Amino acid sequence: MTRATADRGRRRFLSGLGALAFIAAVPMAAGARPADPLPSWTAGATRTAIVDFVQRTTSKGDAFVPVAERIATFDNDGTLWAEQPLYFQFLFALDRIRALAPQHPEWKDQEPYKSALAGDVKALALGGEKALGEIVMATHAGMTNDEFRATVKQWLAQARHPTTGRRYDEMVYQPMLELLAYLRANDFKTFIVSGGDTEFMRAFAEHVYGIPPEQVIGSRMKLEYRLTGDTPALDRKPVMEFMDDGPGKPAAIGAIIGRRPLFAAGNSDGDLQMLQWTTLRPGPSMAIIVHHSDRAREWAYDRQSAVGRLDKALDEAPRRGWIVVDMAKDWKRIYPDAAASAANGAQPAPPPVAGGSPTLSISRSRK
Amino acid sequence: MTRATADRGRRRFLSGLGALAFIAAVPMAAGARPADPLPSWTAGATRTAIVDFVQRTTSKGDAFVPVAERIATFDNDGTLWAEQPLYFQFLFALDRIRALAPQHPEWKDQEPYKSALAGDVKALALGGEKALGEIVMATHAGMTNDEFRATVKQWLAQARHPTTGRRYDEMVYQPMLELLAYLRANDFKTFIVSGGDTEFMRAFAEHVYGIPPEQVIGSRMKLEYRLTGDTPALDRKPVMEFMDDGPGKPAAIGAIIGRRPLFAAGNSDGDLQMLQWTTLRPGPSMAIIVHHSDRAREWAYDRQSAVGRLDKALDEAPRRGWIVVDMAKDWKRIYPDAAASAANGAQPAPPPVAGGSPTLSISRSRK
Repeated sequence: MTRATADRGRRRFLSGLGALAFIAAVPMAAGARPADPLPSWTAGATRTAIVDFVQRTTSKGDAFVPVAERIATFDNDGTLWAEQPLYFQFLFALDRIRALAPQHPEWKDQEPYKSALAGDVKALALGGEKALGEIVMATHAGMTNDEFRATVKQWLAQARHPTTGRRYDEMVYQPMLELLAYLRANDFKTFIVSGGDTEFMRAFAEHVYGIPPEQVIGSRMKLEYRLTGDTPALDRKPVMEFMDDGPGKPAAIGAIIGRRPLFAAGNSDGDLQMLQWTTLRPGPSMAIIVHHSDRAREWAYDRQSAVGRLDKALDEAPRRGWIVVDMAKDWKRIYPDAAASAANGAQPAPPPVAGGSPTLSISRSRK
Repeated sequence: MTRATADRGRRRFLSGLGALAFIAAVPMAAGARPADPLPSWTAGATRTAIVDFVQRTTSKGDAFVPVAERIATFDNDGTLWAEQPLYFQFLFALDRIRALAPQHPEWKDQEPYKSALAGDVKALALGGEKALGEIVMATHAGMTNDEFRATVKQWLAQARHPTTGRRYDEMVYQPMLELLAYLRANDFKTFIVSGGDTEFMRAFAEHVYGIPPEQVIGSRMKLEYRLTGDTPALDRKPVMEFMDDGPGKPAAIGAIIGRRPLFAAGNSDGDLQMLQWTTLRPGPSMAIIVHHSDRAREWAYDRQSAVGRLDKALDEAPRRGWIVVDMAKDWKRIYPDAAASAANGAQPAPPPVAGGSPTLSISRSRK
């Protein structure tokens, strides 16, 4: 936003110069926005609806919205990055269980750790929320908040996705990166509002999405302040303080943002209430649902899958005017190319590891 | 920040023009920062320390801090606005009890409402946290979040402080308004991190402090999403979800901001841990404590008062290098003048009401 604001200030200044307007071409050429802000979006109704909405709300007229109120909220898993075969955060947890196992010899014979160590996701799922909760607590609590973020960063640098062989933070959606940048270039403030752990997402949100830590809203473990000598720390306690999912999303938006979004994006029923909260009010608003329809380039899944449901939100979409993004049709490409990622500071993905993931055997089949 | 950023972009562009630099004087004259960004701060050690810190951290050199990390956090009560004879939010609660009394005839004979209706703060205090909690729940929950903010705005427009006769939002500290603006002009992002109710503070933080809702962090009632027909709402439930005080402040900073502050300001032991969290780390940082030493123009209170303690924080200040702001000595003026407030969209304060507050007889004496 800073660059966009500076560009705007520069342009206003230039237009104000009047007689000196001939010089405008010089700095504009350097700072000019590319002709097409959404090159990875196929021309068509979806793309047109997005561009029209942004133009209407940012140009003088009936639908104009002041800059301060241009809030855009994005779900993360399945909306900004992939989520198959399981939420990446859960794959992180399983890798952490393996990494911590030498300090816990008892895990070899103790559920749910035994199944986690075996990478037996089906057995874990049979253990239900209690088993999954135990895996999460063992890997997401019991350290400081800074240590946790550093651990996630290290994992992101080393881990590779079991089927694509990519770094997980290279499995972000190129069209959504463009949408985030396009909204920010039009002075929208972009937030993540997602069920993932806040600190987990902060480990990559800034360098991958351009979203700073203070605009990442997720689920939270309880943080407890501790001063040891002259060294303060925030300890992550094994208590889930807040689940940022379903009706929790508008609640978190109210608690932390304090304005209703003008734009929201999601991909499951966990986003249903956020989309309602965004669009069920007077004035302009827009909501999109990323629909995973692309078996060839990503995954195809619909109303019920390993990572949740997209059922009520799909039913409500037509009467609420929510745009369902058809990944296969609306997106020219899925992921950024490795060269572009490297230029952004991320490491290019290595070739897929022969024999699948080094850490996990996923027994679920791709639909 | 938007205007400052635009100004900076403009200046960079101008300096880049080289041969055309002669025109720079034209827009600079219009947008130039005043020579003195802190006119209400007395020349002296405190003021010098603040200016030096901002210059060192924003100029190239050993102490330079990137823009993204320039986080400044401010307590509200007693730091940005006055807090005597009692927290203004509690005076709001007492006014609301009176306003709601016709719908609750039983309150006439029922504590703590009876004492609240009589404005008998001493009797209320004897009821302890339970009594105060009941008053807070009766006035801060049981409506939607939007309704609550509107009620606070309406109260701010009508209520007058019992001894100054000013609007409460005109009892903000002019030197602190200048400090907020000075930090923002240097690309600091300013947050409120205060024990007050988040939504209560949002009712005035934007127009009075220039701090948008998403940068206001306070205590929170639990919010619950409800959809009635096609109308969604966030209900304020009578449950204190989070107390943003003491060790809760660094916890909230970790949960919501996700970066350690570079600068923090407080005025009581409720800010102790925030100041520690800000300054006990490598690299530059600064913390200030507003010390209410001004009996003539404001109030004079110290280690123990009706609104809390300033005890441990004052003890730690010397060895932590925290700057204790001596209100009587360091501030040329306390409040903005009414004309300036009116120009900012606020109403000028009427003359003090004869006979004291229309709604409250405060029995505590000023020290």
